[in-house]
Amino acid sequence: MAKIAIMGHGIVGSGVAELLRKNSINISKRVGQSIEISKILDLREFDNLPYSDLFTKNFDDILKDDEISVVVETIGGLDPSYEFTKSLLKSGKSVVSSNKELVSQKGDELLSIARKNHVNYLFEASVGGGIPIIRPIYSCLAANKIEYICGILNGTTNFIITKMLEDGLSFEKALSLAKDKGYAEKDPTDDINGADSNRKICILASLAYGTHIYPHEVCQSGIECIELADVDFARSIGCVIKLIGKARRLESGKISIMVCPAFVSNSSKLASVGGVYNAILVKGDAVGEVLFVGQGAGKMPTASAVVADIINICGLRSMMLKEQGSLFQKTINLQFFFHARISRLMKSL
Amino acid sequence: MAKIAIMGHGIVGSGVAELLRKNSINISKRVGQSIEISKILDLREFDNLPYSDLFTKNFDDILKDDEISVVVETIGGLDPSYEFTKSLLKSGKSVVSSNKELVSQKGDELLSIARKNHVNYLFEASVGGGIPIIRPIYSCLAANKIEYICGILNGTTNFIITKMLEDGLSFEKALSLAKDKGYAEKDPTDDINGADSNRKICILASLAYGTHIYPHEVCQSGIECIELADVDFARSIGCVIKLIGKARRLESGKISIMVCPAFVSNSSKLASVGGVYNAILVKGDAVGEVLFVGQGAGKMPTASAVVADIINICGLRSMMLKEQGSLFQKTINLQFFFHARISRLMKSL
Repeated sequence: MAKIAIMGHGIVGSGVAELLRKNSINISKRVGQSIEISKILDLREFDNLPYSDLFTKNFDDILKDDEISVVVETIGGLDPSYEFTKSLLKSGKSVVSSNKELVSQKGDELLSIARKNHVNYLFEASVGGGIPIIRPIYSCLAANKIEYICGILNGTTNFIITKMLEDGLSFEKALSLAKDKGYAEKDPTDDINGADSNRKICILASLAYGTHIYPHEVCQSGIECIELADVDFARSIGCVIKLIGKARRLESGKISIMVCPAFVSNSSKLASVGGVYNAILVKGDAVGEVLFVGQGAGKMPTASAVVADIINICGLRSMMLKEQGSLFQKTINLQFFFHARISRLMKSL
Repeated sequence: MAKIAIMGHGIVGSGVAELLRKNSINISKRVGQSIEISKILDLREFDNLPYSDLFTKNFDDILKDDEISVVVETIGGLDPSYEFTKSLLKSGKSVVSSNKELVSQKGDELLSIARKNHVNYLFEASVGGGIPIIRPIYSCLAANKIEYICGILNGTTNFIITKMLEDGLSFEKALSLAKDKGYAEKDPTDDINGADSNRKICILASLAYGTHIYPHEVCQSGIECIELADVDFARSIGCVIKLIGKARRLESGKISIMVCPAFVSNSSKLASVGGVYNAILVKGDAVGEVLFVGQGAGKMPTASAVVADIINICGLRSMMLKEQGSLFQKTINLQFFFHARISRLMKSL
């Protein structure tokens, strides 16, 4: 049995708990052992859940529990996620994160700490919600030189723009509708101004180009200024407006990244991706263009990606321990493989 | 340095050799060691290549070369691929294949042999060319119960149907154009009659549902009978015709698979995927619908998937050997992880 902990019982964290319970039989089969949630860290009270007894308000209860090998970080933001993650990795625990702010700001440092401590720091859920994109880029497309990555990386803004286009709503009304439907947070600043898309394209570019690119280095503009007249003009020239994050390697070898609203031709694969869906187009020199589309946010899609990372860590560990039997004897932590691969890709050059 | 061999220097095999040479610096970085092609098996003569000295007509030159740890099988068909693959796996070599016929017919047996011999049998290239789909299904979507997989799995027929729809060509003229452009083989029977799509949906379904499903068990029909009138009728009801492979789990728990031309609503994510592109829509209970689109065939896209599998095997091996140092000493072959994961998914129930 693998014991894990979850930090942050918000939308994603509670989704992870729910998914691990709901599909536990299937997941156990895939991992080769069962996965048990030992503790959940949250400062709020959750008295009426079937697993209310697992809650703690004390981080040390997780850090100092030697039986916990993997910790899910779905707190979000930098504080206290950054310090918590560092402490966990240093204590020999792998961390799985959906926190794009932390990964985009501190990913290289955390990967380096993970590497030194022979554990994993995985973050498939940090970009594109449940859409498989991190692993496909560093694994399935590993033979390619990536020419560009270009995508609709924020579902909130895509919903707003779609409503302006399809229903003729003003920006303000579309935003209000997004809030009503739960697609926009109370404070949607980071979605609207492009900061969220910026973090995500930085994470993808860092993986694709092997150099950590920080969001503050990127030219970023949001959709605050888009008016119905712009949407109509786009239509008149056979285009739609989308908030696009794009990273590409210039002929000089430098990496160019930008986040801004763009006219996207109706003939583009990205044009028809509406509503809260995300879409990421990757061009490799061998594979050509590959498109990934799916729900880029939401409780269960994001939980799907988090739990996949947990399965991969626990599955590898389980396999290796079984195969190696007494030879292995815990002298080396074999949760190391995934992390080392990502780390090699993402280290600062 | 990892030494590999390639069996079959046709379109895909030559693409693998070309890609390994073209992106060798990037690939070495990712693997942590260089990958060298030691031998290429083909009965034909290739005198004017920069690597003509690597060719052999004798399978034993590969089988008995202890330095070769990974062999690429791009011969296609069952004979002699099946016997060659068995011998290689039994001799402790991992095999990477693009051969959908062999994987769909003998995948479970070959995975079982690989497992017993602690090596890998990987086949990302067998479905969807370079589109990452095998690994995303067994890895990134591992937390999901897969409700259905539905896709345009054959580029040749999709090109023909697109030309009928967009340019009003008859089936015969569209087929002839596909041959002229190199999108259809001289004998395109297996594409046209749905056999190729059938093999691919069987491979995907076997991975998703953990039971090997054989193509002969599947209800299959092709596009031979599609006329322009059908295409026009589809248009009149807001649809396009696509050759669809679909696998889904019924409420009874049984798996239903079919391959046939279908009316696809213009509002479907699959409708706009035209030309030689493939598209695969996967619905998981947590992630919802995820769509993967890309070139489903062709020299370099398929080579991209083959080389990714090679990188994953050699990278894991390199990592493990380095980490374990003298503890390991070749007593256990750690090329085992990927295979075991796939094998557990695909074994006959």
